[in-house]
Amino acid sequence: MPSPTSSVPATEPLTVMGAGLVGSLLSLYLARRGHPVEVFERRADPRRAGFQEGRSINLALSDRGWRALEGVGVADDIRQVGIPMTGRVMHDVHGNLTHQPYGVADQAIYSVNRGHLNRRLLDLAEAQPNVRLHFSQQCLSIDLKQQELHLLDTATKQEHTASYTRLFGTDGAFSAVRSALQKTDRYDYSQDYLEYGYKELTIAAGPNGSWAIEKNALHIWPRGQYLMIALPNLDGSFNCTLFFPYEGPESFAALQTPADVTAFFTRVFPDAVPLMPALEEEFFAHPTGSLVTIRCFPWKFNDDVLLLGDASHAIVPFYGQGMNAGFEDCSVLNELLDQHGDAAWPTIFAEFQQQRKPNTDAMADLAVYNFVEMRDRVADPRFLLQKKIEARISAQYPGRWTPLYSQVTFSHTPYAEAWSAGQHQDAIMARLMPHIQSEADFDQPDVQTLVQQEMSKKP
Amino acid sequence: MPSPTSSVPATEPLTVMGAGLVGSLLSLYLARRGHPVEVFERRADPRRAGFQEGRSINLALSDRGWRALEGVGVADDIRQVGIPMTGRVMHDVHGNLTHQPYGVADQAIYSVNRGHLNRRLLDLAEAQPNVRLHFSQQCLSIDLKQQELHLLDTATKQEHTASYTRLFGTDGAFSAVRSALQKTDRYDYSQDYLEYGYKELTIAAGPNGSWAIEKNALHIWPRGQYLMIALPNLDGSFNCTLFFPYEGPESFAALQTPADVTAFFTRVFPDAVPLMPALEEEFFAHPTGSLVTIRCFPWKFNDDVLLLGDASHAIVPFYGQGMNAGFEDCSVLNELLDQHGDAAWPTIFAEFQQQRKPNTDAMADLAVYNFVEMRDRVADPRFLLQKKIEARISAQYPGRWTPLYSQVTFSHTPYAEAWSAGQHQDAIMARLMPHIQSEADFDQPDVQTLVQQEMSKKP
Repeated sequence: MPSPTSSVPATEPLTVMGAGLVGSLLSLYLARRGHPVEVFERRADPRRAGFQEGRSINLALSDRGWRALEGVGVADDIRQVGIPMTGRVMHDVHGNLTHQPYGVADQAIYSVNRGHLNRRLLDLAEAQPNVRLHFSQQCLSIDLKQQELHLLDTATKQEHTASYTRLFGTDGAFSAVRSALQKTDRYDYSQDYLEYGYKELTIAAGPNGSWAIEKNALHIWPRGQYLMIALPNLDGSFNCTLFFPYEGPESFAALQTPADVTAFFTRVFPDAVPLMPALEEEFFAHPTGSLVTIRCFPWKFNDDVLLLGDASHAIVPFYGQGMNAGFEDCSVLNELLDQHGDAAWPTIFAEFQQQRKPNTDAMADLAVYNFVEMRDRVADPRFLLQKKIEARISAQYPGRWTPLYSQVTFSHTPYAEAWSAGQHQDAIMARLMPHIQSEADFDQPDVQTLVQQEMSKKP
Repeated sequence: MPSPTSSVPATEPLTVMGAGLVGSLLSLYLARRGHPVEVFERRADPRRAGFQEGRSINLALSDRGWRALEGVGVADDIRQVGIPMTGRVMHDVHGNLTHQPYGVADQAIYSVNRGHLNRRLLDLAEAQPNVRLHFSQQCLSIDLKQQELHLLDTATKQEHTASYTRLFGTDGAFSAVRSALQKTDRYDYSQDYLEYGYKELTIAAGPNGSWAIEKNALHIWPRGQYLMIALPNLDGSFNCTLFFPYEGPESFAALQTPADVTAFFTRVFPDAVPLMPALEEEFFAHPTGSLVTIRCFPWKFNDDVLLLGDASHAIVPFYGQGMNAGFEDCSVLNELLDQHGDAAWPTIFAEFQQQRKPNTDAMADLAVYNFVEMRDRVADPRFLLQKKIEARISAQYPGRWTPLYSQVTFSHTPYAEAWSAGQHQDAIMARLMPHIQSEADFDQPDVQTLVQQEMSKKP
């Protein structure tokens, strides 16, 4: 049953495995193009009462994500429930604060509730007459030759089989679709864990739903080998995440009792502890999450199966780009459909993985790079001075110098290009900074001469 | 039922999954120490009539492998059916030959038939009263918590369950045991394929079972981007392997017809073609094999499961060390049992992976490095001159310079140490070689001075 707005008369339904953020957005894109879409999701319907969130509560939406949401007309709706964060606020061990803007003027990333976003996208997908959502469908195995899914309905405990002609694997970092691909010949695959885990904690709302610390910022407690961050919620609370070694003198292994936890937090996060009344309880009640980078190739199997989102490129969360990269997958796929037409799947699958793989590989590297920046470098005054000097160069040479963070977060420059340009700019900064002791030094004639020399050589 | 020679009264049987080369040797080691051993193997018994070999026919046994075989007293027996290869013979496009010795005096690697070696080890294992072999047992899944194997008897088509207390995964590059570990949290894993495949071909025996090309050598046809090798068999034939790109102008994809194959081989391997009467038939009848490197960590799960051999460190075949590294795993495990006693499994599993992982990682790198050497560098006169100069340095400074190949092949130096020393020596050779145009130059006073300077700085 093609949609009334269909541009191409669709014949066979497309199958989407996984109705998380990327799967629900992809389904919406495909349905809007006129394709009938069958969606299978392992979990129960998150819009039903009693559903337990399994993943982190906040996400940072930035330009790539917004563009993908705009493509299906849902951006404005989501923006109303997002909180703009215009910069980082660093908290030192004495509770002193340092601000660092993310970009220029009103550039911001948005703290958005994962559950809300997912439910909204599911509502929109379900409102399409050509989308059918099937929840509580665990994929037990896939017969790639027969093009069949072997599913378990976890509600009824019945196993059943579903055929597909075109399967989109948007079932996340532990994708069942990718598991099937991994067993095919010449399949490159890696899963690589950091020696760090994470724990989600809460800063409580202030009186009358006020925010106890600055609302429009991402808060960071950088401590060299570890860090805590906090993102604002609409109700005045903040969702905190502690990124912390599994083992060692300061680690999850070292904090065994509520007294250990309070003593440690009081010592290293003294300004946060009074705002965290449930600290001890949450620390032991919440699971310790692990941090994985997943790479694989190819992303397609024949012309029948394509992976998108975390299924093909799960990354660590330190650049806030995991969801944004997955959403950008949907934009890119949609552009390829525009370009080649809705029947040209073999071309589209091949071009998609060819174009996208180097970019998500770069993003995976950037995410690990930013871990070091967030836990260590942002506490260094020299680093913060360098960021200010970069902003000055950027202002002085419009369009010729975009800081790496801005390219990743506030542009649609392919990640690999952004990373390459960023490395080049880093090398320039390494040559300039020995000549600069304060922001005022930037205006010194000798520094200006050096900057001009560097800019004249810059591509 | 402990063996009469048992040093430790064993209580619970040990379980070995996989009765290939490493699994059968490990079972023998464990049984000789007095442990009851249950062995499960996916394939049928290879000693039965009609069994089809699934893997390459020849292997190159070298010192690490021999030591492991000596440890269970089977080395002499195997040596009788091995053919020593004392060096490489390179064949150029005109059929001209160049010799390069592998080591000094009678140092050699041995061409051994895989099937024979496996069958012999199975015979020895089965002769132990405390070993029970179970063939045609496909491992469908493993419940790591319950410590249960879910098996399919492929002969009777019956599924059944077997408990284990201690499980050794020696089930190869596509290990079912490792598959179970891979799904546990924080499990690092990668499978990485070369863009090359391989094809097994045959040089026929000469008249009366004679060898048509030099018997006691490993033959190489190096061609830059690809190569063919040949290892001798006892019946006068040679087992050839073509390592060849999957795609490109000279590739498997480019050879589609018997005429294509003969034309290509005649052009690039002209001296081999007359010796390969079944070339066209074999080329299309034999499968194209793929070449994978597998890395993972940890190799153990709790104190219950340990991976050995290709299951934990499958490598590409270009250094001839895959089986040798797996056999060395058995030697190392046996040493740890000697050191800590047969009940100290938690300590032994932990030390085994800690000690062994850096070494097999180094071996994986070395195997890829040797691919470039074999397909490209051995055709370069400068490279062969460098090998001769290295041999001269090694002779002049006994015990202070061992060529990398010799350290890997003819020593028990841990692979990581060998690789590190080899890289250091490579750097020295890169400084010396610009001063050397012929082997005689090595005796020139200025060259000798340089060599003495380098050796005085060498650790």
